[in-house]
Amino acid sequence: MTQSTPRRGFASDNNAGVHPVIMEAIQKCNMGHVIGYGDDPYTQQAIKTFRRLFGLDTGVYFVYGGTGANVTGLQVMLKPYQAVLCAETAHIYVDECGAPEKFTGCKLIPVPTEDGKLRIEQLQPYLAMQGFEHHVQPAVISVSQPTEMGTVYTVDELIELSSFAKKHGMLLHIDGARIANAAAYLNLTFKEITRDAGADVLSFGGTKNGMMFGEAVLIFNPRLQNDFKYIRKQGMQLHSKMRFIAAQFEAYLQDDLWLANARHANKMAQLLAQKINEIDEIKITQKVESNGVFAVVPKRLIEPLRKEYFFYTWNESKNEVRWMTSFDTTEEDVENFAQTIRRILKNNLT
Amino acid sequence: MTQSTPRRGFASDNNAGVHPVIMEAIQKCNMGHVIGYGDDPYTQQAIKTFRRLFGLDTGVYFVYGGTGANVTGLQVMLKPYQAVLCAETAHIYVDECGAPEKFTGCKLIPVPTEDGKLRIEQLQPYLAMQGFEHHVQPAVISVSQPTEMGTVYTVDELIELSSFAKKHGMLLHIDGARIANAAAYLNLTFKEITRDAGADVLSFGGTKNGMMFGEAVLIFNPRLQNDFKYIRKQGMQLHSKMRFIAAQFEAYLQDDLWLANARHANKMAQLLAQKINEIDEIKITQKVESNGVFAVVPKRLIEPLRKEYFFYTWNESKNEVRWMTSFDTTEEDVENFAQTIRRILKNNLT
Amino acid sequence: MTQSTPRRGFASDNNAGVHPVIMEAIQKCNMGHVIGYGDDPYTQQAIKTFRRLFGLDTGVYFVYGGTGANVTGLQVMLKPYQAVLCAETAHIYVDECGAPEKFTGCKLIPVPTEDGKLRIEQLQPYLAMQGFEHHVQPAVISVSQPTEMGTVYTVDELIELSSFAKKHGMLLHIDGARIANAAAYLNLTFKEITRDAGADVLSFGGTKNGMMFGEAVLIFNPRLQNDFKYIRKQGMQLHSKMRFIAAQFEAYLQDDLWLANARHANKMAQLLAQKINEIDEIKITQKVESNGVFAVVPKRLIEPLRKEYFFYTWNESKNEVRWMTSFDTTEEDVENFAQTIRRILKNNLT
Amino acid sequence: MTQSTPRRGFASDNNAGVHPVIMEAIQKCNMGHVIGYGDDPYTQQAIKTFRRLFGLDTGVYFVYGGTGANVTGLQVMLKPYQAVLCAETAHIYVDECGAPEKFTGCKLIPVPTEDGKLRIEQLQPYLAMQGFEHHVQPAVISVSQPTEMGTVYTVDELIELSSFAKKHGMLLHIDGARIANAAAYLNLTFKEITRDAGADVLSFGGTKNGMMFGEAVLIFNPRLQNDFKYIRKQGMQLHSKMRFIAAQFEAYLQDDLWLANARHANKMAQLLAQKINEIDEIKITQKVESNGVFAVVPKRLIEPLRKEYFFYTWNESKNEVRWMTSFDTTEEDVENFAQTIRRILKNNLT
Repeated sequence: MTQSTPRRGFASDNNAGVHPVIMEAIQKCNMGHVIGYGDDPYTQQAIKTFRRLFGLDTGVYFVYGGTGANVTGLQVMLKPYQAVLCAETAHIYVDECGAPEKFTGCKLIPVPTEDGKLRIEQLQPYLAMQGFEHHVQPAVISVSQPTEMGTVYTVDELIELSSFAKKHGMLLHIDGARIANAAAYLNLTFKEITRDAGADVLSFGGTKNGMMFGEAVLIFNPRLQNDFKYIRKQGMQLHSKMRFIAAQFEAYLQDDLWLANARHANKMAQLLAQKINEIDEIKITQKVESNGVFAVVPKRLIEPLRKEYFFYTWNESKNEVRWMTSFDTTEEDVENFAQTIRRILKNNLT
Repeated sequence: MTQSTPRRGFASDNNAGVHPVIMEAIQKCNMGHVIGYGDDPYTQQAIKTFRRLFGLDTGVYFVYGGTGANVTGLQVMLKPYQAVLCAETAHIYVDECGAPEKFTGCKLIPVPTEDGKLRIEQLQPYLAMQGFEHHVQPAVISVSQPTEMGTVYTVDELIELSSFAKKHGMLLHIDGARIANAAAYLNLTFKEITRDAGADVLSFGGTKNGMMFGEAVLIFNPRLQNDFKYIRKQGMQLHSKMRFIAAQFEAYLQDDLWLANARHANKMAQLLAQKINEIDEIKITQKVESNGVFAVVPKRLIEPLRKEYFFYTWNESKNEVRWMTSFDTTEEDVENFAQTIRRILKNNLT
Repeated sequence: MTQSTPRRGFASDNNAGVHPVIMEAIQKCNMGHVIGYGDDPYTQQAIKTFRRLFGLDTGVYFVYGGTGANVTGLQVMLKPYQAVLCAETAHIYVDECGAPEKFTGCKLIPVPTEDGKLRIEQLQPYLAMQGFEHHVQPAVISVSQPTEMGTVYTVDELIELSSFAKKHGMLLHIDGARIANAAAYLNLTFKEITRDAGADVLSFGGTKNGMMFGEAVLIFNPRLQNDFKYIRKQGMQLHSKMRFIAAQFEAYLQDDLWLANARHANKMAQLLAQKINEIDEIKITQKVESNGVFAVVPKRLIEPLRKEYFFYTWNESKNEVRWMTSFDTTEEDVENFAQTIRRILKNNLT
Repeated sequence: MTQSTPRRGFASDNNAGVHPVIMEAIQKCNMGHVIGYGDDPYTQQAIKTFRRLFGLDTGVYFVYGGTGANVTGLQVMLKPYQAVLCAETAHIYVDECGAPEKFTGCKLIPVPTEDGKLRIEQLQPYLAMQGFEHHVQPAVISVSQPTEMGTVYTVDELIELSSFAKKHGMLLHIDGARIANAAAYLNLTFKEITRDAGADVLSFGGTKNGMMFGEAVLIFNPRLQNDFKYIRKQGMQLHSKMRFIAAQFEAYLQDDLWLANARHANKMAQLLAQKINEIDEIKITQKVESNGVFAVVPKRLIEPLRKEYFFYTWNESKNEVRWMTSFDTTEEDVENFAQTIRRILKNNLT
């Protein structure tokens, strides 16, 4: 690790490490032998905790990661001639190297959207495909909560989508890689913003909020409960030493660690947005409702800033960048980052 | 965790926990932010270490687990109309819920074998399929080293297979979920028993020998190097916080921790076999060359023993069971286990 | 076409041309425009005829060919983590270049069998896989009727298999590429030997019995009716000018053309078997119950005979060959063929 | 067939029957036995004819239909993590029920376009995906010639696309379901508008121009020649009685039957466009360059007209319809159709 690498950056919340409480839980469960593949007391306990939060009949399945959660979660909802309606910015559409298509055999239909949110007016035209065998059959609406643009669906917006889905024989999937940030922003429980809003399947992530690895696929729809254990295994997502995922989730959910972490990251994003707003040359492009800040910046800023803080350009053609805060971002980090931006902009006048 | 659960059993080496040195490495790399998905110094270091051991041009890719390693490793070698020749006991054939077929689209052809080993006489007949479009085209020979029956291929046996493969336009894949146990048994380096024996792709496991999660796909064949990073992502095997896999492998390979662990587990299997051999009513069915012991036992033993020590029946119709030792198995564990068996057999006379 | 090519051989029943009545039907439906993809009166008529024969609620779908019929028929019965139990000689296992695995994602489990028939004793052991997520889940038993070895299941044998299937939550698929030959042999209706015997899905072929192209997938199980039209299109089996398949089937089923053709082919196989039985050096290996004759022949016969009559060696290592008769085989053809064999054997004494 | 069904309509060129010359060729090849699956003299002859037209090293493979041709043709060009860039109106994207995604595992990326044509400015942005494992990798540009909107690429436009493809490591696929109509319009040979324009693989159709069934996959790129025979079989596209496809193509290509048919259909489309243009209330929306006419019509026309002539509404929201002419459309048919439209519009004044 070279000296010049910054200790904490704003590239992605998965560049952070593991929260100390999670790390401690991992160590504490490292005792003796337990049966593999989930038939162990740690996994049983974590499943119980999830069921307490989401309903006692929730199907709870731990998998390795976010792409695996999304893909296997979609697989349980789909037949290969069916299709998924999703935002053109959706992680499943853009950032999973075609894993959903490859594994499910289904088409993903990208719906253009400014703020990452789907709305039923946009989905309506696809209903015309229903019943015609020449076309794939839309069967799942998949939303990211928060969206990839950092915006957060209200519960009403989700209910509108899930009602539309049900009305037309479709299901609702939520990619909740950052679901904690959405719950923290909305100040609601996980259940209120997912199951109660009509979701059938949820990818419940924690890695972007302090965990090391592991994701949970939560299945609310009773008709989808029977197949998933096979899909998880066939989807290469069944961990042998399951206790090390389970213990993380248990620590994450106990004592609302997830909420403290997400609130903090969200707060740091607000602070970052505030600091950035003070810089005339930079324009924030999306509402800051979770832990990401999207901004159009002067082109001359990008390369010099990246040398000091790695980050991703979101939209090359618009010089739009994405900066993310994490559970471990400090006010000082934000201050330093904003100052670095100011310094570069000042020193590189065009 | 109920009181009666034994602290250490003989069901599987993945029932063990994480070796303390590995756990320490995980904690030590949990500092600050690093770039995700493998562009971090820990991953770069671990790749370097693998290349030192296997050759500087080795493609080194970390994935989540063993099934993922096998399936993505096979994918890079195969087109969908091709086929894999493997033992009918192979993990890829029996224990991965059809993941290889699902993901690669290929047929796996099960070859009957007593001791888990493939031999070229058995493979010869499948050459008749070559060139006929009605048949799938055998393109990969996949072996497990050690085999699922605990036996170990000699280097000469592997070379015979890889030469046969090359002669007939096929490739050699090794499932090395327990490759350390084979290297320890043969008293040879990893490279000598894989790359130097003609392997094109190796699944390199560590979870059954003291790691928490993560597996490495090692690609030796230069023609197979370009695609794998996409296959890994599409195969849902790209971990975001990669450092936590990399740091484990670094610790595992440094100071020959892998060798100490594997030697110990192998030694405990020898001890177990010796104790079992002293029991007249039990017959060991396979050569004990790694950390597993296969035995035909009296039917009346199975249920009572399983109540005290969970384990898997390997072959229901023959009352054949499989017992595995681990890096953390103690001589006392073996002694207690053997005594339990004796006690049950004595108390349950037919 | 070179002079030396024989007019009619014994290589395969698909080497024959099209029956004149079928050809006439093709011509007669070539009038004006009709809607494509099956919404035409010819298709509606042919569907009606099938329903009259198989039951009014039968799902009737025309596809291009036999492999397409089998693969799409299996697809409607399967989820990707499930498996098909079939004879190791089954067309779906051996002769479809892995299409079933590729398209369904499922494993096909080959069951060894001498005469091409599955029996429940052989299937019993696979029940042990049920419920364990590490294993694929047997969900379909697929039989060929007649088998690839020319033998024919009795109705009782089929009922035994379908009862076993139902009892254990599985379905029965019949590959009926030559179903007419089986019905002719058993002297029963199509319905008696398929639907009434417990079949859920039937591939109904005609190309080997006088048609030009086209096959029907018949779905008896009411739970499988809804998806198939999409599966057919996604399976690349939906013909635009459907009337040209439908008109063939209508002609094939009307006035029992199928039965006359099949009876004749079966009779010619009996005659061939009788002639062959008179030759000491040749041993017939399978019961002749449909239109194929399997025989072990002197090695010195094979190449010279193939120069005059093309045919397939079935089992290279045993010098076992397969000879097929067709709807257009004549007694003179059989006589000439037998005499050619005698001549070659006599002139090539070892 | 009810009395009221019109003899010839404008719904689709696949609603027409088979040209008499083709039908005669089918009958003439129905003599005696020939080897199946393409090893027959008719197939060899047709392959020769294709090679004379497209180059002696062209890979020529007959398949059942257009979707099968497109999907298997794409399969030979793609690995599952790669992607196809195509117009959002492309048949492969809209009208094949997801067969390309299902069979290749690849994503199809829909590019918005007014006239059905791709242009390199639209493709440029997708180059940003290259090299990043999170994204699928664009590897094939697929165009329809003529497009689904009836427009025809000039040779220069195709060369621009193929040069762009080659420059960026991609391949060019042409869906030539109606390639004859494009060649007739451009007054150029097949080779000039496909291979010479840089195509790597061509789906060569004939069913929409007088054939009964069958399509040819033509492979120009020498690197793609080895796999296709297996892909065709695994893609359920290998016809056993191949001669009946081959003889059609031979008749279609001999004596320029294809050209006469396509010229006639194109001419009838011009006539139809001329008649339609005379009707004030209807607006033709696309250049008429092949055998389709797209028009926005008064909503009150659609249902009454459809009762007399079945046709497809192309774009429900715009009242845009598609009318196709065929090789057998007569001037009188066009005149009657136009008069019917006038009558309905007059009798149904709003």
